[in-house]
Amino acid sequence: MYASLSLKPALDAIGTAIDQRFDKLLPIPADPRRRLVEAMRYAAMGGGKRMRPLLVVASCDLFHVDKERALRTAIATECVHVYSLVHDDLPCMDDDDTRRGKPTLHKAFDEATAVLAGDALQALAFEVLADEATHEDPYVRAELVLELARASGPTGMAGGQMMDLVAEGETFDLPTTTRLQQLKTGALIGFAIEAGAIMGKASADNRVKLRGYARDLGLAFQIADDLLDVEGDSGRTGKAVRKDAGAGKATFVSLLGIERARKQAEMLIDQAIGHLHGFGQSADLLRAIARFAIERDR
Amino acid sequence: MYASLSLKPALDAIGTAIDQRFDKLLPIPADPRRRLVEAMRYAAMGGGKRMRPLLVVASCDLFHVDKERALRTAIATECVHVYSLVHDDLPCMDDDDTRRGKPTLHKAFDEATAVLAGDALQALAFEVLADEATHEDPYVRAELVLELARASGPTGMAGGQMMDLVAEGETFDLPTTTRLQQLKTGALIGFAIEAGAIMGKASADNRVKLRGYARDLGLAFQIADDLLDVEGDSGRTGKAVRKDAGAGKATFVSLLGIERARKQAEMLIDQAIGHLHGFGQSADLLRAIARFAIERDR
Repeated sequence: MYASLSLKPALDAIGTAIDQRFDKLLPIPADPRRRLVEAMRYAAMGGGKRMRPLLVVASCDLFHVDKERALRTAIATECVHVYSLVHDDLPCMDDDDTRRGKPTLHKAFDEATAVLAGDALQALAFEVLADEATHEDPYVRAELVLELARASGPTGMAGGQMMDLVAEGETFDLPTTTRLQQLKTGALIGFAIEAGAIMGKASADNRVKLRGYARDLGLAFQIADDLLDVEGDSGRTGKAVRKDAGAGKATFVSLLGIERARKQAEMLIDQAIGHLHGFGQSADLLRAIARFAIERDR
Repeated sequence: MYASLSLKPALDAIGTAIDQRFDKLLPIPADPRRRLVEAMRYAAMGGGKRMRPLLVVASCDLFHVDKERALRTAIATECVHVYSLVHDDLPCMDDDDTRRGKPTLHKAFDEATAVLAGDALQALAFEVLADEATHEDPYVRAELVLELARASGPTGMAGGQMMDLVAEGETFDLPTTTRLQQLKTGALIGFAIEAGAIMGKASADNRVKLRGYARDLGLAFQIADDLLDVEGDSGRTGKAVRKDAGAGKATFVSLLGIERARKQAEMLIDQAIGHLHGFGQSADLLRAIARFAIERDR
């Protein structure tokens, strides 16, 4: 479905599809919970590149997974991504005022609502995955839940975020920074790509290839993010820039320098694309996403 | 296993069992994630009445569910309960300094760690449930995840907590207060009790009975909590008291008065126990829990 599109139309199509699905999933209740659901919609809808949802549907396309089912897993993945952004932006965490080109959730609503909306988005992710509308085989549903929970918890994103907090007080070396980023952003990107393999019951061989692609892409993506933080323009990225240097955090750029960091990202992307050998044209979208990951707006 | 115990030994046994399982589930990593896991252990271990875990194992006992599997679901339920306490205690929410007789997590650590530890505990709950160690049948695992996610999200605990925040600005009537409490505390208590029916593949008839028990118990439990807030002693409850009146919130006690609230709780407990008719001696522990719910330390 999406695999036949080139990158720009695919990004547009997934953006529209994700917003439509969130709109259906989050009807506004006629009671005081209204404010919570409005906050969830504010955070989840109408913004973001939808990179992780696109990775889910692109990997699902490799194995001919039903489009609506793929979109449910894409929504669940985006729920976890969005909840992490909402909580990371809180005053006690990164204290950011702008996200996806608009005020952060705690600025537009309030801190308590932001904490709750993040919590509720995480719960919603698992509710969506465990529902039989996502896959007829309960074994697949349970495996999706297990892998997404690992990507979100102490051995995934939350663990990486903790390392990031500690990084403000000490200077990490390159292996520790790599580990931090593999947890903080790599784990969820890894889930997005593995989701297609789980839903499509891919062979062990194909899973290994996709895991290789995910590992390299995740790291390249983070290096590109670090480069954006140094070279970017907040008007175009839609969020604050030059935060890392201000916080004294080690990044790939501070450890490697701009030029070596850029070379490293390009090398990783070549390597990521190399893992897709054997998938033929059905992996063209995954290849395009990999190239896009290091060519985003500066 | 637990059903043959009377209440006090059952509470002691579940307390020990839950701490042992958390200790195994949360090994302290030898990297900067250490602080996150220490915070999760601080919040989850060595305190609390473990009422929800006891409800899980007591309902599992009705259907002869394997003890270790029942304990995994009990741990998942407690993870969700503990994450909600950690987030509710945050300065931007209820701003509490004491919980389970010790400093709240954000006081003992810091706010950012408390946000992350809560997030990670929620993820851990679903990771535990989706693992095949919890049940050999993936359909059961997926159903447990679905129901716990509903109990935690906007149609459950998070929705109730949002109503509670709104309640500080307006005065709710009795039906709205009842709805608030059914979401805020009733949903998770309902999951704890339904867990046995899901794991034991109970008949539709038995599920209806347990749902009735859960609904009445949850409400009685909350009325008892409101009474404790008015009449309690923080040295014995281990948390702040007389917060509701200070915040101007409607509670069952402010709406009904102390005497009618107490009568209502007693009536609900009789009704809850009535739903257990037909389960015989195997439900004695559930009966004892119901009586205990309104006889806690004042």
